[in-house]
Amino acid sequence: MLKDFEKSSPEEKDALNKEIKELRARLIGQQQLLREKKLPVLVLIEGWAAAGKGSLINQLISEIDPRFYNVVSPAVIPENEARYPFLYPYATAIPENGKLIFLDSGWMESTVRKTLRLEISKKEYKRRIRSVIEFERQLRDGGYLLLKIFLHIDHDEQLKRLKALSSSADTEWRVTPDDLWQHREYKKFLNAYDEFMQETGDPVEWHILDGKRKRIAVRDALKLLVTRIDEALEAGRYIGEPFEEEFPLLEMPLLKDVDLSPTISDEEYKAELKRLQDRLSELHNVIYRKKIPVILCYEGWDAAGKGGNIRRVAYPLDPRGFDVMPIASPEPHELNRQFLWRFWTRLPRTGHICIFDRTWYGRVMVERLEGFCTEKDWKRAYNEINEFERQLTDWGAVLLKFWIHIDQDTQLARFTERQNTPEKQWKITDEDWRNREKWPQYEVAVNEMLQKTSTKNAPWYIIESNDKHYARIKALKLIVEQLEKACRKHFENTFD
Amino acid sequence: MLKDFEKSSPEEKDALNKEIKELRARLIGQQQLLREKKLPVLVLIEGWAAAGKGSLINQLISEIDPRFYNVVSPAVIPENEARYPFLYPYATAIPENGKLIFLDSGWMESTVRKTLRLEISKKEYKRRIRSVIEFERQLRDGGYLLLKIFLHIDHDEQLKRLKALSSSADTEWRVTPDDLWQHREYKKFLNAYDEFMQETGDPVEWHILDGKRKRIAVRDALKLLVTRIDEALEAGRYIGEPFEEEFPLLEMPLLKDVDLSPTISDEEYKAELKRLQDRLSELHNVIYRKKIPVILCYEGWDAAGKGGNIRRVAYPLDPRGFDVMPIASPEPHELNRQFLWRFWTRLPRTGHICIFDRTWYGRVMVERLEGFCTEKDWKRAYNEINEFERQLTDWGAVLLKFWIHIDQDTQLARFTERQNTPEKQWKITDEDWRNREKWPQYEVAVNEMLQKTSTKNAPWYIIESNDKHYARIKALKLIVEQLEKACRKHFENTFD
Repeated sequence: MLKDFEKSSPEEKDALNKEIKELRARLIGQQQLLREKKLPVLVLIEGWAAAGKGSLINQLISEIDPRFYNVVSPAVIPENEARYPFLYPYATAIPENGKLIFLDSGWMESTVRKTLRLEISKKEYKRRIRSVIEFERQLRDGGYLLLKIFLHIDHDEQLKRLKALSSSADTEWRVTPDDLWQHREYKKFLNAYDEFMQETGDPVEWHILDGKRKRIAVRDALKLLVTRIDEALEAGRYIGEPFEEEFPLLEMPLLKDVDLSPTISDEEYKAELKRLQDRLSELHNVIYRKKIPVILCYEGWDAAGKGGNIRRVAYPLDPRGFDVMPIASPEPHELNRQFLWRFWTRLPRTGHICIFDRTWYGRVMVERLEGFCTEKDWKRAYNEINEFERQLTDWGAVLLKFWIHIDQDTQLARFTERQNTPEKQWKITDEDWRNREKWPQYEVAVNEMLQKTSTKNAPWYIIESNDKHYARIKALKLIVEQLEKACRKHFENTFD
Repeated sequence: MLKDFEKSSPEEKDALNKEIKELRARLIGQQQLLREKKLPVLVLIEGWAAAGKGSLINQLISEIDPRFYNVVSPAVIPENEARYPFLYPYATAIPENGKLIFLDSGWMESTVRKTLRLEISKKEYKRRIRSVIEFERQLRDGGYLLLKIFLHIDHDEQLKRLKALSSSADTEWRVTPDDLWQHREYKKFLNAYDEFMQETGDPVEWHILDGKRKRIAVRDALKLLVTRIDEALEAGRYIGEPFEEEFPLLEMPLLKDVDLSPTISDEEYKAELKRLQDRLSELHNVIYRKKIPVILCYEGWDAAGKGGNIRRVAYPLDPRGFDVMPIASPEPHELNRQFLWRFWTRLPRTGHICIFDRTWYGRVMVERLEGFCTEKDWKRAYNEINEFERQLTDWGAVLLKFWIHIDQDTQLARFTERQNTPEKQWKITDEDWRNREKWPQYEVAVNEMLQKTSTKNAPWYIIESNDKHYARIKALKLIVEQLEKACRKHFENTFD
């Protein structure tokens, strides 16, 4: 691709300026429509050092109302990004509906640099490519207009520009050792960029622009942006089609076939609780020092005992190293972004534990049943969630998912007890009773969820909770077991 | 204080355990009431290295539902905190209504360490003390229950504990060079802690607990927490009384006396616009390199021309170094915290520019007039805002506040034009017309705001905007002027 890049023929200067002016005027007209149609736009600008990415962005935004766009550059991303998954800085920076984000280099540059520096393995590189494809497709399917531009200059042009920058005291500081290294290794970078673009050209294609001829690059970028926005406005907000990817799924029983009779004696409960909590406390220390991120997901019927179960897990943990994230209905700024955004922004750092009290699975349960998203949205979500979770476990996270299970009679008994016990009345609301009436529909949704998202890397565990003590011990055992496994494992360089 | 600290007499072990158990039971009962009464609680635990702050926190939270509390420790605060004001990590971490936050050391430790390391000047130390007092009072007045505990151990006890930690391979890593330095300089720290507590004991007092006798410390801390929560629940959410602090105020004209006739010719506008934008672009570079944070505040009548004015300022700026923050009505998670929280979380980093399109002054305008807060709240806000802004300028920020001013006839003309121009109709809503009817009430509120919050360090500028071109040039001139001043100034070590 890059190696065969042809320079476009020169144009009359006046005609070019006129064209740019017209395109800008169209862009101004579009910004309001983007707002009305709630269409979010993400423009990724990648390219060579000194190719002029920054000034290209300046030219693109010059007439846009600053309330409608943001520019994000990796330099602005806090340094602690390294303690999060590789896509974290980008996934947390996506625009809300009706706004534009311009990214001054992103997931391409960070991947290529790390690869050429041999900081990530070939295997990790492949994983990243896969994550990028998934991430871009999920954005597109979630209604985002995503444009990817590569700004190209050749070896001689780069040399000329780096020399010019270095020769003035005012601009010298802009040339970093990294830039000089890239210039020395121009050929290697050329191949690596080409490879990256070839591997990530689908489903969102790349656009290569000639950075040597700046005005033409501005015109071409504007044209691309304006045309693609027009198309998107015309077509209306895109809703991606569901499709199945091949994930190795574990076999799960139907809820109705789960035996809920297991119990545990009081003495055994006490002894086991102490033993497991002591062990968990030790393991938390190891996890912290080995920088293993841990994500525990709790889902289950109302009154199944999620809260009490979580408390028994949290009790032995060092409170500086874990968080419990209660997930309620999304707030407006969350609804205005791709549905996984509010979970990306809540991920634990490496070495930390996050316990989600309800999770992203709301998409295929309450949002499905209450019609808070389209059918395509929730059907697509199984796959999107499997991808998201694979990205987390690729990062090195231990990810456990619990379905806290009870039967309808037990729920009724607990609801009634709550209703009749003054200190517990706050725990029971009219909504709980309404949800209870929808038990059969929920059962269908939960069964489908368990069947479609119990992957090898992120399995579901059904926790029989008619006896809450039994449920707590079972959850603790599973956590201890999986953490022990993770602590023993030799870790690849995924925590760079 | 510390030097005279008396050890409490020993107690029967059983009685102590029983007392702790009872206190915990009371705390469990309180958590639900805190939620219902929307009372937020912040517990700051300071103290010596190895005094047992972490394990004290563990004991305090052991029975609280993890959905109701969080533990924050400086180690968990991202490393980029240094690019924000000194209180930033704490001001952004305050709990929402109904929740508890435990801080494992905070503004005391960071101030004392920096002072003893000679990293901050005596003058900066005094500023920090003042900020701390203001911050704590604002939290209290905003309905927060704030508890400050200092966990004390003497020199010999600290030595014993550091030795014990160092002697085991499992715990050795917990002893940091900083801890050893503190131990060597025990006396200096003792004096510095004492001084800090003496200076910040009002309006929120300190509680010193004996870290040597752990169970007693747990009992005392629990008792303090439970008693104070009971008092707060009994008294109901506290709303602070307004009070005036002495701020050097600039004299401001009444709006009705502002001459709105100034205009500018087209040629002069074009020439000045270019000159000022070019200069601003240069200055942005200097600001970035000198790491000066810049905060530009826009307030003004509907249709006064804020948006267009902001665009002319943003145009020459490097988009990687500035953000425009449109401020709309607060979302639920913002309403659930002290009113300045949503501005703390939006501050620019050093070297960056943030343009606020509407600001924290909503408190004394729309929130006052629409009854979104109590009278005490908005009356108190003048002072709270002056303090907040002084904290920002103490940090080194350039802070400019513009009131974009027009008269009623001009507003009517612009509203009518918007109504009659299809591309502009989105800019005008029923709410704008309703607000227009309240012009006289707003005028009273704006006048009061201008009189009470135009401080020397953060002055208001009235921008006459009947002629929008004139207004843009005036704003740009002021920005350029103030930035030039700031760039010339020698900076103290406020950016540590």
